[in-house]
Amino acid sequence: MTPYQHLAQDGSTIALPVGKVVCIGQNYQDHIAEMQSKTAPQALFFIKPSTSLCALTPGFSIPAQQGAVHNETELAVLIGKPLKQADYVQVHNAIWGYSLALDLTLRDVQAELKKLGRPWEIAKGFDGACPVGPFISKEQVQHPQQLEFRLMVNGQLRQDGNTANMIRGIHQLISEMSQHFTLLPGDVVLTGTPAGVGPLHSGDKLELQLADQLRLSTKVN
Amino acid sequence: MTPYQHLAQDGSTIALPVGKVVCIGQNYQDHIAEMQSKTAPQALFFIKPSTSLCALTPGFSIPAQQGAVHNETELAVLIGKPLKQADYVQVHNAIWGYSLALDLTLRDVQAELKKLGRPWEIAKGFDGACPVGPFISKEQVQHPQQLEFRLMVNGQLRQDGNTANMIRGIHQLISEMSQHFTLLPGDVVLTGTPAGVGPLHSGDKLELQLADQLRLSTKVN
Repeated sequence: MTPYQHLAQDGSTIALPVGKVVCIGQNYQDHIAEMQSKTAPQALFFIKPSTSLCALTPGFSIPAQQGAVHNETELAVLIGKPLKQADYVQVHNAIWGYSLALDLTLRDVQAELKKLGRPWEIAKGFDGACPVGPFISKEQVQHPQQLEFRLMVNGQLRQDGNTANMIRGIHQLISEMSQHFTLLPGDVVLTGTPAGVGPLHSGDKLELQLADQLRLSTKVN
Repeated sequence: MTPYQHLAQDGSTIALPVGKVVCIGQNYQDHIAEMQSKTAPQALFFIKPSTSLCALTPGFSIPAQQGAVHNETELAVLIGKPLKQADYVQVHNAIWGYSLALDLTLRDVQAELKKLGRPWEIAKGFDGACPVGPFISKEQVQHPQQLEFRLMVNGQLRQDGNTANMIRGIHQLISEMSQHFTLLPGDVVLTGTPAGVGPLHSGDKLELQLADQLRLSTKVN
């Protein structure tokens, strides 16, 4: 039994190793535009440690004393088999399922790190920086590359994306990640956020929706 | 049984979880000078995933096709108990032991990432980026903050440091790390490198020495 049994869906919990979270940045054009980011041909990868994983529902905490904490709503992919320098078919076979996650980001801290050319871990990898929902097995998700997903904050639509708009698709980005970092069962891959990042505050009520597959209500403690 | 039994010393192997590697940069003044780095009051922390851990001996591989791979020889600390927002006494009690490690760094890749303000994972966290020696239990190390350590490459002295010269001492830096990232049993902390970083090449013969505690011979495959 692991602390991450809740990664699986209600009624079908499975014991999973507590893995790392491998993330891609700048994977939706509208988010690149809102961040006024410099793009580069090479993919932007970063990693949140297992200690950043926590349950998205019924509520999660943020380190508000360290400046603005931004929501970044993303399609999350749960890895079920080891992947090293994998091709698309191996990636396809290793995916266990899908959910939504928040790539919580200390935005002021990150801006300072970028300016200094420093690594991002304290802005992206802190304890609780990756709240995740329950995972749906891939057999239940017919077209993972055509899923609309949304974040509502206090009743207002804040993010409205579609996985069809990823710059690197799911199989491509996981294959590329596996050229650098071996992925293990229980690891989670975050696939990038669309436009609409912004600050979260204690007491905010959030609703997240992934097509007709997942609908979650939560709050910031 | 885990793949990291060899983390413990010969004759006293213990099964440890395969943990993350939490690192501090810019912790020796002579290395800051050689890198012409901008310093900042806040500590520079980064993380290598568990998949970067590998045995230092009898040989290790480097991703030479991605540009210069530099040695950074460091005192490694093995964590034996959970640490979250820990004070110095808790840190002291949670340390299992010490070894030497190489914080292998893709230096050309890192330079480009710094310029772009991007995260460092692909330069620091690749598979095999953290070769570690066998750990010596802390009871066998009387003065961990007064240890000379050296790296010889092909018979030439390349790094010659002393843990007395750390800017942040062992207890301080682990306490600070634990404000951001919970440390778990089996995690490894790297404490920074002194001057003398430089490129490694296939066939290089390395000798590493930690005071009179540890003497290791290895090679780059």
